[in-house]
Amino acid sequence: MDKVRVGLCGLGTVGAGTLNVLQRNRIEICARAGCDIEIVHIGTRSDKPDVDVTGIKVSRDIFDVARDPDVDIVLELIGGTTTALELVRTAISHGKHVVTANKALIAEHGNELLAEARAAGVSIAFEAAVAGGIPIIKALREGLSGNRIEWLAGIINGTGNFILTEMSEKGRDFADVLAEAQALGYAEADPTFDVEGIDAAHKLVILAAIAFGMPLQFDKVYIEGISTLESEDVDYAAELGYRIKHLGIARRSAGGVEMRVHPTLIPESRLLANVNGVKNAVLVEGDAVGPTLYYGAGAGAEPTASAVLADLVDLARDMACGQSPSVAVLGAAEGSDVPQVVPIEDVNCAWYLRLRAEDKPGVMSNVASILSDAGISIEALIQKQPPAGISHVPIIILTNQALGATVNAACAQLEALPSVVDAVARLRVESLDG
Amino acid sequence: MDKVRVGLCGLGTVGAGTLNVLQRNRIEICARAGCDIEIVHIGTRSDKPDVDVTGIKVSRDIFDVARDPDVDIVLELIGGTTTALELVRTAISHGKHVVTANKALIAEHGNELLAEARAAGVSIAFEAAVAGGIPIIKALREGLSGNRIEWLAGIINGTGNFILTEMSEKGRDFADVLAEAQALGYAEADPTFDVEGIDAAHKLVILAAIAFGMPLQFDKVYIEGISTLESEDVDYAAELGYRIKHLGIARRSAGGVEMRVHPTLIPESRLLANVNGVKNAVLVEGDAVGPTLYYGAGAGAEPTASAVLADLVDLARDMACGQSPSVAVLGAAEGSDVPQVVPIEDVNCAWYLRLRAEDKPGVMSNVASILSDAGISIEALIQKQPPAGISHVPIIILTNQALGATVNAACAQLEALPSVVDAVARLRVESLDG
Repeated sequence: MDKVRVGLCGLGTVGAGTLNVLQRNRIEICARAGCDIEIVHIGTRSDKPDVDVTGIKVSRDIFDVARDPDVDIVLELIGGTTTALELVRTAISHGKHVVTANKALIAEHGNELLAEARAAGVSIAFEAAVAGGIPIIKALREGLSGNRIEWLAGIINGTGNFILTEMSEKGRDFADVLAEAQALGYAEADPTFDVEGIDAAHKLVILAAIAFGMPLQFDKVYIEGISTLESEDVDYAAELGYRIKHLGIARRSAGGVEMRVHPTLIPESRLLANVNGVKNAVLVEGDAVGPTLYYGAGAGAEPTASAVLADLVDLARDMACGQSPSVAVLGAAEGSDVPQVVPIEDVNCAWYLRLRAEDKPGVMSNVASILSDAGISIEALIQKQPPAGISHVPIIILTNQALGATVNAACAQLEALPSVVDAVARLRVESLDG
Repeated sequence: MDKVRVGLCGLGTVGAGTLNVLQRNRIEICARAGCDIEIVHIGTRSDKPDVDVTGIKVSRDIFDVARDPDVDIVLELIGGTTTALELVRTAISHGKHVVTANKALIAEHGNELLAEARAAGVSIAFEAAVAGGIPIIKALREGLSGNRIEWLAGIINGTGNFILTEMSEKGRDFADVLAEAQALGYAEADPTFDVEGIDAAHKLVILAAIAFGMPLQFDKVYIEGISTLESEDVDYAAELGYRIKHLGIARRSAGGVEMRVHPTLIPESRLLANVNGVKNAVLVEGDAVGPTLYYGAGAGAEPTASAVLADLVDLARDMACGQSPSVAVLGAAEGSDVPQVVPIEDVNCAWYLRLRAEDKPGVMSNVASILSDAGISIEALIQKQPPAGISHVPIIILTNQALGATVNAACAQLEALPSVVDAVARLRVESLDG
């Protein structure tokens, strides 16, 4: 095959970026693919001023692209899970490969779509769905294919990381930084998907499915956002030698696999703790290679386009050789069991707890007793000076490994103490060294 | 094809690691490849006690493996550039694909070998030749294939990085740490290849050839080691906010491409500055994706085996689909020119200079005049307290961008000053932010 013909659906940020980068780097890209790659049909509801579509057929109905017999590969860059789902299905049923940047679509419908693609003898590629331009899907599927993946932990939402970086470096409050992020275009008017961790969970479930060879199970991911994080806790964590990051963690454990998104204290010496602003990074531990880290821009027009084009080149390379590209392998390897997802209450990890109490004798002792009776081993128990103008003293506890259920029960008892005011802030702590 | 039959040549560190990991993770690896992968023939001069070769044919003449009609893929894991060269040629001429970990072989003979492989319709894969288990070749060839690569900078020799980390964190001298590295097995009895930068240069030329689409040109790499680095300069660099790393740098510039290995001051805030011990990391800037970083174990039995197996799975996947695996594309893309390698004297960068002078009035002024007359713009000019027991004062200069030739000429003039003793220590400075 001398030419691979591409249909591009969606001229938003990623679609425009893809078109622009392909035009700019066309010679090198086609040389790497071993054949010509040409966008022959675009589906978009409206023209875009900074996008040159001269000589390309443009349709207002994106399904025309998915049904076009002169299109070999469809780029689904419209986002969302309704029209995009139908579009991808249409492309598959018309024998076309699909490249998508749509994490929600893959996370929530990937099992069925990949099965449909396999049955139709076509591929769905989704490097651009996770961590922007960082080739993490490729690293997991291919680069680390000799390993048993033990765990992975990622900063996989740039909005949240931008906010946490500002809170950490400048001592600012969450609401204050969120407003700035929205003004800068790093956060949506409705920031829920980003700051509450749903976007990160979409991406995590994809990473976990590939890493552990299991189906996508989005409904099983534990999701906790960063919107209730107090700048006070960011400061105390720093004093203790930790940074707080919004991590997506997937880990093999005794009961199966864990999948969880939540604010996490990590030692400041870790590379991951020093990934700031809108950048993403994923730490992956393989049994043979040990810890590996992949860092770069997790979003944006051209970084995401970089990932879309990488998939396009992979597909084109295979097609140029006259072969069927390999569909991403999800689901269990034959002869192995599908791992169970461990409920969050049964996840074992270390904890940071911070409560506020009246400054009275006996409080520390009560706190220590409650934790001890619960079987929670204490690594540190610290009473801080209260912030200016506050009469209650902050008490910080760092625990060793304890189950979520155990910690929640102990926190309920702490909150029931007469001298304790408000709820106990609780954040998980990960050493990320094994 | 249901089974891919592998011939493993060399049961040293990497060969043994490859066999062990394949045996341990066999089910997952074969599932990912979509077919069975089996080592059917081993070539080794002697048996190894911790390696189980039960049921595998073992030959003392490794060429028997390369000629064996029942072998599809040969793993060349013996190292060196004489027997290994003949072995790889034999495998190619017998129609077998080759996977190698041999950076010297690819750096020095890769152009011819890849051409021979292409003509024979077989592949040579060499992920394991650069940065151990980090899938950097795959990232450059595939993950970033939509980009024009602007530059890359890597810590790609673990021995050197271990030594520099110890010098930096503990204030120790080079010779002292080298001795410890040798005792720990991180450095050879003859450490020249590692500490003088030759090993890093082998790896750099491979990365540059892929990044810039040009032939391998090992003889054109500028190579400077770390054996003359003074702990005094490591300390001054730290005071100025820099760490010293032994970097391999490949960069597009006005005159073509630069390829250079040398000790380099980099800002301590960079992730790369915080890659310590025997770990490797490569920072790659693509025009679309921006800066990306890949970090992990750069050497060792199982990390290197991880890379060998990744190549094996890639080849097996293609063979299982009945296609010819794609040979690594080196050389210029059609329609583009082969970039010229810029001589080191014509490389423009910032510099750290440190001289020793008698503590007299006028010295700083003389130094400033010489640099100014040479057209070298000074960012900082600092006189330090001399180390205890030394009467001469250290004077440190941080320059802005200047050509190597200009700096060398200016240093000659500085050394000619009556009050200046010894040679001027000179180290390149890179901001790594564009």
